[in-house]
Amino acid sequence: MNPDFSQLDLNGRLRHLITLDGLDAALMRELLNRAQGYLCLPGQLPPRGGDLCGWTVANLFAEPSTRTRASFELAALRLGADALNLDVMLSSRVKGESILDTIYTLQAMQVDVFVIRDAEPGIIEFVARHVEDHVSVISGGEAHLSHPTQGLLDALTIQQSKGGFRDLIVTIVGDIRHSRVARSAHCALRALGIAELRLVAPEEMMPDRGEFAGAVRYRSFDEAIERADVVMMLRIQRERIAETATTDPRNYHEQYGLTAARLARARPEAIVMHPGPMNRGVEISSEVADGPQSVIRRQVSNGVAIRMAVLAQLAEARRRRTP
Amino acid sequence: MNPDFSQLDLNGRLRHLITLDGLDAALMRELLNRAQGYLCLPGQLPPRGGDLCGWTVANLFAEPSTRTRASFELAALRLGADALNLDVMLSSRVKGESILDTIYTLQAMQVDVFVIRDAEPGIIEFVARHVEDHVSVISGGEAHLSHPTQGLLDALTIQQSKGGFRDLIVTIVGDIRHSRVARSAHCALRALGIAELRLVAPEEMMPDRGEFAGAVRYRSFDEAIERADVVMMLRIQRERIAETATTDPRNYHEQYGLTAARLARARPEAIVMHPGPMNRGVEISSEVADGPQSVIRRQVSNGVAIRMAVLAQLAEARRRRTP
Amino acid sequence: MNPDFSQLDLNGRLRHLITLDGLDAALMRELLNRAQGYLCLPGQLPPRGGDLCGWTVANLFAEPSTRTRASFELAALRLGADALNLDVMLSSRVKGESILDTIYTLQAMQVDVFVIRDAEPGIIEFVARHVEDHVSVISGGEAHLSHPTQGLLDALTIQQSKGGFRDLIVTIVGDIRHSRVARSAHCALRALGIAELRLVAPEEMMPDRGEFAGAVRYRSFDEAIERADVVMMLRIQRERIAETATTDPRNYHEQYGLTAARLARARPEAIVMHPGPMNRGVEISSEVADGPQSVIRRQVSNGVAIRMAVLAQLAEARRRRTP
Repeated sequence: MNPDFSQLDLNGRLRHLITLDGLDAALMRELLNRAQGYLCLPGQLPPRGGDLCGWTVANLFAEPSTRTRASFELAALRLGADALNLDVMLSSRVKGESILDTIYTLQAMQVDVFVIRDAEPGIIEFVARHVEDHVSVISGGEAHLSHPTQGLLDALTIQQSKGGFRDLIVTIVGDIRHSRVARSAHCALRALGIAELRLVAPEEMMPDRGEFAGAVRYRSFDEAIERADVVMMLRIQRERIAETATTDPRNYHEQYGLTAARLARARPEAIVMHPGPMNRGVEISSEVADGPQSVIRRQVSNGVAIRMAVLAQLAEARRRRTP
Repeated sequence: MNPDFSQLDLNGRLRHLITLDGLDAALMRELLNRAQGYLCLPGQLPPRGGDLCGWTVANLFAEPSTRTRASFELAALRLGADALNLDVMLSSRVKGESILDTIYTLQAMQVDVFVIRDAEPGIIEFVARHVEDHVSVISGGEAHLSHPTQGLLDALTIQQSKGGFRDLIVTIVGDIRHSRVARSAHCALRALGIAELRLVAPEEMMPDRGEFAGAVRYRSFDEAIERADVVMMLRIQRERIAETATTDPRNYHEQYGLTAARLARARPEAIVMHPGPMNRGVEISSEVADGPQSVIRRQVSNGVAIRMAVLAQLAEARRRRTP
Repeated sequence: MNPDFSQLDLNGRLRHLITLDGLDAALMRELLNRAQGYLCLPGQLPPRGGDLCGWTVANLFAEPSTRTRASFELAALRLGADALNLDVMLSSRVKGESILDTIYTLQAMQVDVFVIRDAEPGIIEFVARHVEDHVSVISGGEAHLSHPTQGLLDALTIQQSKGGFRDLIVTIVGDIRHSRVARSAHCALRALGIAELRLVAPEEMMPDRGEFAGAVRYRSFDEAIERADVVMMLRIQRERIAETATTDPRNYHEQYGLTAARLARARPEAIVMHPGPMNRGVEISSEVADGPQSVIRRQVSNGVAIRMAVLAQLAEARRRRTP
């Protein structure tokens, strides 16, 4: 983010959510706690609220059928908002100005929250800098850079399983270089104070040296998983594997796939995470994905709860600013 | 369906609705009665309910603009549910596991009912076998095999016009071989106890001998329509006609199209049905489609009512299981 | 419209809204006043209503992501209706009858209002002539002919800025020949009684002589803008420019683009309008579009309010007819 831009309002409350980078741990904890209240037992109807009654949430996703868009849509509806889905990628528009014209038009229709997924770095903050005072922007995934609600839902999932963050060893595995999921997890977990973050990836999928401050880098998955409390697998793009001379899917699975044998090297109560959608047999074996240590489905449930928490928090902050 | 799978719960109530095959007549009658209560006079606002308040219904249809999807969406909204539309055909996914991953993901977002249309036989039951105890699956049309809500709405339409089923002669005409509509009508009408089911179709559109137990097969439409109480026309795929050497659309209309002259051979008070969309001038003449014996539009109204009845019944059964 | 068709009911109230041509000024004023009540200050939640509680509004637009569809969808939701979006262009269907079959099917599902955008002249009235007594049809834009809610929102915007219509000089600029926006503005402003309507366009974009009765035609923008109170710019289709030998985008901007220098020739308090989306640097400079005289975003807000007013008025008229 530009140094002169803040996603917080003057009360230090959340106004936008574009990145977890620099976000206060206390604020994150507040979001995790609030999200916890939106969870329910299987078979129960999910808690609802009226926090966004009368609000309009516009989802701007290029592809209509992503799970993240559905998750945001349900979060908005369950808080009483109207949800507007627009299949549009802002950055694919011809000119810079017309991005803002699209936004200004929707804003003039009284859209209160924009949820935006975009492939171009910077577009989401660019929008946030230009909306009116009462309007909020939430990132639904920005290029390879940031996916803040994913980072929060991952933190919530870890907190639920481990009771906290201190002393934890977390191992992230896969195409970290191109992963917004990994970057946002790094921001969240560093702020919340885990003991050790380990990265393991083939050379060409390892991020640049300047990134992921404080993390320890491994070439061997077997070493990186030793005594880990959390193993966070990333989705591998099959196209990406094909590009590299050194790997094919089978090779990849052997070196960087999570199997039951490999998982046995982690702590016995270690949890396995994946942001989905999974390539079974490539980055993760079905045995592990469906096994007792997997919390992958719980991540999805936490995703709706986190998005509800973020929306409710934005609404509360707005009410505080303009009573 | 596999012999070890039941779409009923342990109380004998509907948990899924995948096929009418084997469904109890009493249960069908209950659905018809309930649906009747959701109908209204033209110009009145349709009855609504809160039976699905807090529920989420996900519509998984490959094409976004089908009438059946709209019908399910309205049924869900009018019962107070949130409706999520996803343009997705499950069976077009690359691997078997990933079908379930899609379902599990949506289930983890607290989807309560999946309405699925799919071109691959068995997918819908496959999903139903894997969802959690409180989740229901409804078929919105499965390959050429089953379209249970269509079968029920057809039965409801006949009951409204004829007061019951006993002594009725029903003639189904057209591409029966490839028709899920015909198969579900057969299941419903056999269970509800009509007097005679007649099938009439060109050779290549006639189902295999083992199918449609109890039905009488005709080659001549003029014979098959004699004294019929109900004439149920099927949509003909123009591509299907082109495939066969013996027919073209005009030929087809002459031999298997329903005209006023042909309809005069049925009972005077016979009704004409069509699941839509119609090819006017091919399987049915406009004179008949818009004539006084046509109940085609009433079928559509009954469709929403039946879908509301099915949803409300599933909700009631779930509340009985988990009070 | 055909002479035997009326968009008013027997009480003289609005039943459909297909064109502003011939619509009573008193009725327009009533809509403008009602719309005014649906506006709010930025940062406030927009007024809502229950006027359409239990109603179903179906939006039939060929493209899913137009601003006009979003505007109608929000208007319907904010009045308590269920909104059904169908990506369908009626006139692209193969046969005339099947247009009505689509409509009759949705009508049988208890759709109360159809909002239709279509590229073929006459389709929307054709639908309106065939729906049931209680069903209403609203044009969301018809070929180059009519865009009545746009005409009304333009009138509302002018009234807000100017306090009324008398004595006003309004200049419309651009591809008037192909513009439904210009035609509906002409109808509205003539009925509401402005002093002078001026048209300015290159030869090939000027409408036929028989059209735009009472308007004064100019070749020079500089002359046409003299003392104007309202400058209404039209979107130029880049394809259209390319077609003509005499112009390219830069040439077009020089002759027919609205710049600050040109705007200085209008009255000092003149307002600048544009229906969007804008081609900045072609028909309008960014300086003007974002300048203090621009009311372009207010037009968008007025659009939702006008659509709410039209829907609420239709509902009121229906309740009066069938108490």
